[in-house]
Amino acid sequence: MGIHEECGVFGIYSPNKRKLSQEVYAGLFSLQHRGQEAAGIAVNEDRNIRCLKGLGLVHEVFGTQEMEELGNGQIAVGHVRYSTSGSNAPLNAQPMLVKHIKGQLALCHNGNLVNSYELRKRLELSGCIFQTTSDTEVISYIITQKRLKAPSIEDAVCEAMKELEGAYALVLMSPAKLIAVRDPHGFRPLVIGRNEDGSYVFASETCALDAVKASYVRDVEAGEIVIVDWEGLRSIRSHCGQRKSLCVFEYIYFARPDSFIEGESVHKARKRAGSFLAEAHPVKADVVIGVPDSGLDAALGYAEESGIPYEMGLVRNKYIGRTFIAPEEAGRGGQVMLKLNPVASVVSGKRVILIDDSIVRGTTSQRIVQMLREAGAKEIHMRISSPPFLYPCYYGTDVDSDAGLIARSHSVPEICSLIGADSLGFLSVEDALKLAPSIPPDHFCAACFDGSYPTRRPEQSEKNRFE
Amino acid sequence: MGIHEECGVFGIYSPNKRKLSQEVYAGLFSLQHRGQEAAGIAVNEDRNIRCLKGLGLVHEVFGTQEMEELGNGQIAVGHVRYSTSGSNAPLNAQPMLVKHIKGQLALCHNGNLVNSYELRKRLELSGCIFQTTSDTEVISYIITQKRLKAPSIEDAVCEAMKELEGAYALVLMSPAKLIAVRDPHGFRPLVIGRNEDGSYVFASETCALDAVKASYVRDVEAGEIVIVDWEGLRSIRSHCGQRKSLCVFEYIYFARPDSFIEGESVHKARKRAGSFLAEAHPVKADVVIGVPDSGLDAALGYAEESGIPYEMGLVRNKYIGRTFIAPEEAGRGGQVMLKLNPVASVVSGKRVILIDDSIVRGTTSQRIVQMLREAGAKEIHMRISSPPFLYPCYYGTDVDSDAGLIARSHSVPEICSLIGADSLGFLSVEDALKLAPSIPPDHFCAACFDGSYPTRRPEQSEKNRFE
Amino acid sequence: MGIHEECGVFGIYSPNKRKLSQEVYAGLFSLQHRGQEAAGIAVNEDRNIRCLKGLGLVHEVFGTQEMEELGNGQIAVGHVRYSTSGSNAPLNAQPMLVKHIKGQLALCHNGNLVNSYELRKRLELSGCIFQTTSDTEVISYIITQKRLKAPSIEDAVCEAMKELEGAYALVLMSPAKLIAVRDPHGFRPLVIGRNEDGSYVFASETCALDAVKASYVRDVEAGEIVIVDWEGLRSIRSHCGQRKSLCVFEYIYFARPDSFIEGESVHKARKRAGSFLAEAHPVKADVVIGVPDSGLDAALGYAEESGIPYEMGLVRNKYIGRTFIAPEEAGRGGQVMLKLNPVASVVSGKRVILIDDSIVRGTTSQRIVQMLREAGAKEIHMRISSPPFLYPCYYGTDVDSDAGLIARSHSVPEICSLIGADSLGFLSVEDALKLAPSIPPDHFCAACFDGSYPTRRPEQSEKNRFE
Amino acid sequence: MGIHEECGVFGIYSPNKRKLSQEVYAGLFSLQHRGQEAAGIAVNEDRNIRCLKGLGLVHEVFGTQEMEELGNGQIAVGHVRYSTSGSNAPLNAQPMLVKHIKGQLALCHNGNLVNSYELRKRLELSGCIFQTTSDTEVISYIITQKRLKAPSIEDAVCEAMKELEGAYALVLMSPAKLIAVRDPHGFRPLVIGRNEDGSYVFASETCALDAVKASYVRDVEAGEIVIVDWEGLRSIRSHCGQRKSLCVFEYIYFARPDSFIEGESVHKARKRAGSFLAEAHPVKADVVIGVPDSGLDAALGYAEESGIPYEMGLVRNKYIGRTFIAPEEAGRGGQVMLKLNPVASVVSGKRVILIDDSIVRGTTSQRIVQMLREAGAKEIHMRISSPPFLYPCYYGTDVDSDAGLIARSHSVPEICSLIGADSLGFLSVEDALKLAPSIPPDHFCAACFDGSYPTRRPEQSEKNRFE
Repeated sequence: MGIHEECGVFGIYSPNKRKLSQEVYAGLFSLQHRGQEAAGIAVNEDRNIRCLKGLGLVHEVFGTQEMEELGNGQIAVGHVRYSTSGSNAPLNAQPMLVKHIKGQLALCHNGNLVNSYELRKRLELSGCIFQTTSDTEVISYIITQKRLKAPSIEDAVCEAMKELEGAYALVLMSPAKLIAVRDPHGFRPLVIGRNEDGSYVFASETCALDAVKASYVRDVEAGEIVIVDWEGLRSIRSHCGQRKSLCVFEYIYFARPDSFIEGESVHKARKRAGSFLAEAHPVKADVVIGVPDSGLDAALGYAEESGIPYEMGLVRNKYIGRTFIAPEEAGRGGQVMLKLNPVASVVSGKRVILIDDSIVRGTTSQRIVQMLREAGAKEIHMRISSPPFLYPCYYGTDVDSDAGLIARSHSVPEICSLIGADSLGFLSVEDALKLAPSIPPDHFCAACFDGSYPTRRPEQSEKNRFE
Repeated sequence: MGIHEECGVFGIYSPNKRKLSQEVYAGLFSLQHRGQEAAGIAVNEDRNIRCLKGLGLVHEVFGTQEMEELGNGQIAVGHVRYSTSGSNAPLNAQPMLVKHIKGQLALCHNGNLVNSYELRKRLELSGCIFQTTSDTEVISYIITQKRLKAPSIEDAVCEAMKELEGAYALVLMSPAKLIAVRDPHGFRPLVIGRNEDGSYVFASETCALDAVKASYVRDVEAGEIVIVDWEGLRSIRSHCGQRKSLCVFEYIYFARPDSFIEGESVHKARKRAGSFLAEAHPVKADVVIGVPDSGLDAALGYAEESGIPYEMGLVRNKYIGRTFIAPEEAGRGGQVMLKLNPVASVVSGKRVILIDDSIVRGTTSQRIVQMLREAGAKEIHMRISSPPFLYPCYYGTDVDSDAGLIARSHSVPEICSLIGADSLGFLSVEDALKLAPSIPPDHFCAACFDGSYPTRRPEQSEKNRFE
Repeated sequence: MGIHEECGVFGIYSPNKRKLSQEVYAGLFSLQHRGQEAAGIAVNEDRNIRCLKGLGLVHEVFGTQEMEELGNGQIAVGHVRYSTSGSNAPLNAQPMLVKHIKGQLALCHNGNLVNSYELRKRLELSGCIFQTTSDTEVISYIITQKRLKAPSIEDAVCEAMKELEGAYALVLMSPAKLIAVRDPHGFRPLVIGRNEDGSYVFASETCALDAVKASYVRDVEAGEIVIVDWEGLRSIRSHCGQRKSLCVFEYIYFARPDSFIEGESVHKARKRAGSFLAEAHPVKADVVIGVPDSGLDAALGYAEESGIPYEMGLVRNKYIGRTFIAPEEAGRGGQVMLKLNPVASVVSGKRVILIDDSIVRGTTSQRIVQMLREAGAKEIHMRISSPPFLYPCYYGTDVDSDAGLIARSHSVPEICSLIGADSLGFLSVEDALKLAPSIPPDHFCAACFDGSYPTRRPEQSEKNRFE
Repeated sequence: MGIHEECGVFGIYSPNKRKLSQEVYAGLFSLQHRGQEAAGIAVNEDRNIRCLKGLGLVHEVFGTQEMEELGNGQIAVGHVRYSTSGSNAPLNAQPMLVKHIKGQLALCHNGNLVNSYELRKRLELSGCIFQTTSDTEVISYIITQKRLKAPSIEDAVCEAMKELEGAYALVLMSPAKLIAVRDPHGFRPLVIGRNEDGSYVFASETCALDAVKASYVRDVEAGEIVIVDWEGLRSIRSHCGQRKSLCVFEYIYFARPDSFIEGESVHKARKRAGSFLAEAHPVKADVVIGVPDSGLDAALGYAEESGIPYEMGLVRNKYIGRTFIAPEEAGRGGQVMLKLNPVASVVSGKRVILIDDSIVRGTTSQRIVQMLREAGAKEIHMRISSPPFLYPCYYGTDVDSDAGLIARSHSVPEICSLIGADSLGFLSVEDALKLAPSIPPDHFCAACFDGSYPTRRPEQSEKNRFE
């Protein structure tokens, strides 16, 4: 029912052996919004790595028995993944644990390469075999081959980065080191935290630091390689300094509101989006309501800026699970209706401003508008806290083609009419690039809105993904 | 982690045979907050009743295969249940389907009798055997025995009501009729709806009417027996007219905010609670935040009344499932911390008013307060949108003893100190009785707050429940 | 693919408290051939009965956790059940645990009443409700009602037996006693064993005594009530002395070959059947083979009597599980072919005598014959170690109507031709009644072969079963 | 409780597209005795390969949905596997499906390399990564690397065979070909069959040909590469002609009695073993019984040779499943006792000759002997249809070290005394090599009995397996 981030990564290095799997569990649990299809944890105890992964939510994959099996360790990594379908799905789950000439390597990846097709082809020509369709296997090979000549794993990573193009936030675990890497564009977020006992933590978002009571140190820089081992934390910055292009959708939708990215509060960025919308698309109304949960922050921002009261006009059924499929109910609103219900006492007889974070295909919005009308809303003015989604994303979301994007084929008034609203306003791309004020507008990737890609586009993305 | 309602009931009578199980499904799905442990649906096709029930959420118990098995019908009932523990749990699930001399009876019950011990004893003395520990089996027996001499099922129900004491909102299905019953005190809510095709619907709350696109007709009266059959809808009112005592906690916590009970919006009642709190316990502060999800409405009410900005200061992890158990994390906040995380950008450096719906044991509140302090809150003023919980409830919640109720053994200042807040204020009982202005204060049961029970108390409740 | 016994029962009374559930487990495990659909165990610890039951094999229902939950006790009973289909299946599983005025009663039943329809009707007329469709609920009611006036549970059972007609081997557990009952005809077997520590054991077959290292004491007599309590073992024999009618099919098929029934070895009875067949239906041949597993003993008997070598001509795939369903393989032999394969080196070019225990519909036999021909058998002479199945059984098997019985509508030569054999011979009814030489022929029930029912036939069996 | 074969392989090439998965299912189902831990099927439809695999029995892994997912195809392969433990188990399941430069390759392997440690090391030094611990991944790499320079997949396989040492029976599927390979020693069996429609079938044993109604063509020769494609079947024999060493244990225990290996009936070979035992270790006795199921054929052979009657003296509980674990029953015989029960009417008062296929640790034999004594056996003479197991096997069984082999540390009289038998006799190695008379004794591998290994022994087997 929308756009999906594909992954969350987590890693921890502890000065002394302890039950690290619990902290990875807590970290992944807080990153669950970044991927609900698969979860995995690898624990390094005395240079021996145990790895467990499976399909499902973190707490479905990891029960008491699994946690015991993972045991104690000094280093551990974990991963949550969004979309892995098909029969080989368990193979695509991460961490990917590989054995190579100098030992074991556990790899967690968030993002998407744009040159993986070329890299796979070259590797295959040298006799490599692939057992999955994921970029992570490509990255593992490149790092492993560099490792043959490199004096250290971090040097191998640094060499490998010369060949990898696209989005990658990596957390790697070798027998003795924990390494975090962010691609030179810094598409995906990655932060560093520290525990009171001296443990270092890497995570996709700061909410995972909170989950393990680690304090925020700083974000990994775009292009930086951060290494933690018994000597402490150090960096390789030879890939730093390129033009940054952080995904703006992290602020708008992907990240959790209690997280900070590059020091900027996600919650505040979303309120700011609402506030921009109030300025750009004002309208006379009685209440502002948001589509739970992701439209609520922007609704609050719109209300504050406009002075129109914020209200809770839609109730979300919190028992909808990951695998929930509504029984067929043709013509009755189906899944959306089971998921959301209007609060008639709030909207009946009112002029309603309705805030959501995005419109992808338009069907969900259409049903919500209809639902509010049936509950008695007099007018419905829809405001979207992101610009129209026009171009495919090649950097780690699940929208890698423009097929099905309603804004690609319809004007704003047409969309307004299709969803049945009285008016419709989108956030402008300019405003989107001002959501996190301390970040210069040109340090964002907004390619899905403006088509301006920071890298070349993949030659054969379709083929590569679905071969 | 609180107080729990024990059940939700649903029934539908259609003028023509169709896939009613889908509507019961949708209805129960929207009543899921009233019970998450077990769900059941019974469908009556040409006087033959099929019944399926199981442990779990509605969508866990009813998959494609189960829906097909239930098939078509003209009448159907359903039930969601909160707490059924132990090995015989599946037996305790409802609808209870019994065969008696005049046919089959499917029974769905929300509430708790206060004389079930005496009734069971009497029944056993006449040779009855019991296979469950639930009141529903007692009610089934009483109705069945009355049916032997009564000319109709509704007359049997009317006779049975002379013997049943306590709380019961029933939906019954006989081979040809759908019957809704509310005890003479009207402890538990029960409403009537109607579909465009002429179907009649009974449900615990109006949100279930919305879920099946039925329009609200009226609430079943306290003491009323409502019968639907091929002749339409009619009532027996011979048990009506006693003093009403609707459970006030339905407004405060149990019901869904988009529901109306006795015509009063639950959402508005909760906002009103917040507003009363603002009047009774004012304090200088920078933000008002609610504990998601049940404290949010009252927080909005407090903010509106006080003029202090409403904010989203706590993020709830929405992937916590029904059976989620946190891995042991002694001393780290455990389950509460995995479930909630403060939005530091909202609370840091701020004087915070924190609204929750109740304090039962105090441990959850203590952890939330600590969590907010760690996120930088300068002051934390806790406001509770219900009076202190002092007495056991015998009418269908899971608090049937006063053991463990913190307010029973501690004064408000003591509780404030225990949970670590800077100030603490509860809703007064007087204000609680004014939450739904159209209902006279003496038409409520507030026994859990003031100890004034509308019925005699059960003689042997403990023994009866746990024998 | 044949006829099925419906149940196995087990009970144990120990002079001191210990983990009796393990012995019930071992006993039921050895009785698994008597019922594979559901299993249950009830343990009585200090007059409090815990009961667990579920769908599946004994080792599927009872894992480590369940065994722990059952805990220690002084008395315990268990049950395996064959066919319980439909949505209320878990309710039909046994032991049936009921609460009545004088305490709890756990009941395990093997057999089928012929007057349960009348009894249910009478009970319903007195206000009783039924939650299952099983006879066991009827028996529970009758015993409970007798208990109201009887000085003891055993007297209540004795009174109840005046009303129960048909087949019942019961093991009952009251708060302080373990009771075994066999109907006056003794249709179903029931034996008494004793452990070295003084524990008494009741079981459907002696193989269950072996399983718990109990030594065989004697069979429960037809009509006998055997009571074990702290005073030891005693009997009520007021229902003894009627004409016995033990099910002859117990020897032919139901019981395990290592069991003894009324002191007669089941294995020897089956060999005797083979020997009778060799006398009655001799033929020149090269090898005698049996259909595994139930035709092997008779094949050995045929070989010994005829002097023709016994061989293993069919291999059974032992990985076929309870719930195994073959993928559609129209025209290729399907399930039978996956289950059995001929040993070509044994049958190729040979004149084969093939022994099976029964022919119900004929399809299985037809496929086996075809399979052997394809493996090169020159001639196939089929011999069946039971008489033709002509009449329904009302005493606890799953063949309660004569629909589908091939022998009902076809002569022996016709069946021979249908299954494609070169010759076909059945055991005569006379010979069947001589399988256990110490039992007089008129002490058997062979109603399914000769239509001579020892009791009246049920008035409304179909209705009763499927209402 | 013994020695285990590790795998069964199956492949089919059809001239026209059809639901091949059903035939692979039936084939694997009949090979289930060769591996019960994991099963997998890969189907090639128009050069696109779908692969499904999982832990469990064939019918547990492949339900209706999985069969549908596999769909139609022209080529298909399948695999059953014995022991795959640990967290990466699903990865180790086969077919292994890899993508390489010239397309996809699905590989099924039965056996064990002796030089896999060296090969892995060399591959890792060239930058290869390993995701499993199985030899199959090594073989995939070697073939893939050879494929880079070879004109065809079969040439690549032929080149690869120059580097692979040890036991391997392979079935491979490329986009257009099905290939069967047997190592030059021919350790593991592999046969060719043909269906009436012209399909070619490869399978570990002939019972799998029967299962799909294919007729036996011939065995794949030791060292032969058999290719099937649209042009039909052809061979590469450049690795043929070395000294053969077929595993003799295939006849004694691994294969199914209805299979033929190198044209010799397994059933007859086992009867011959019994006959040799009767000659070498005669004894006066009353009955010959076998331990079901694998000792039955030899028991029949012993009985025929000795003239002592064959009987069924032990009943096997057929409901023991793959994952069955007996509840703790210290000192009571545990699992063995639940699995087997003596037929007292057969053994009581008798001198019993007891035949089993092997003694590994001796505990099972000890319990069976004790059980028979308790059932009244007067004398127990144990005869084993294989020689004493003295040396580890490196060719694909699970006994790759000599730890725990009772015959390694005890003389025959000592073992006899330990298991409590009155006498004990093993098959001699000389006799073992005569079980299949058409195969010269020196064409067998009997290394586990005589320590004479046909290849060098692995340098680092332990390390390699468990690193």
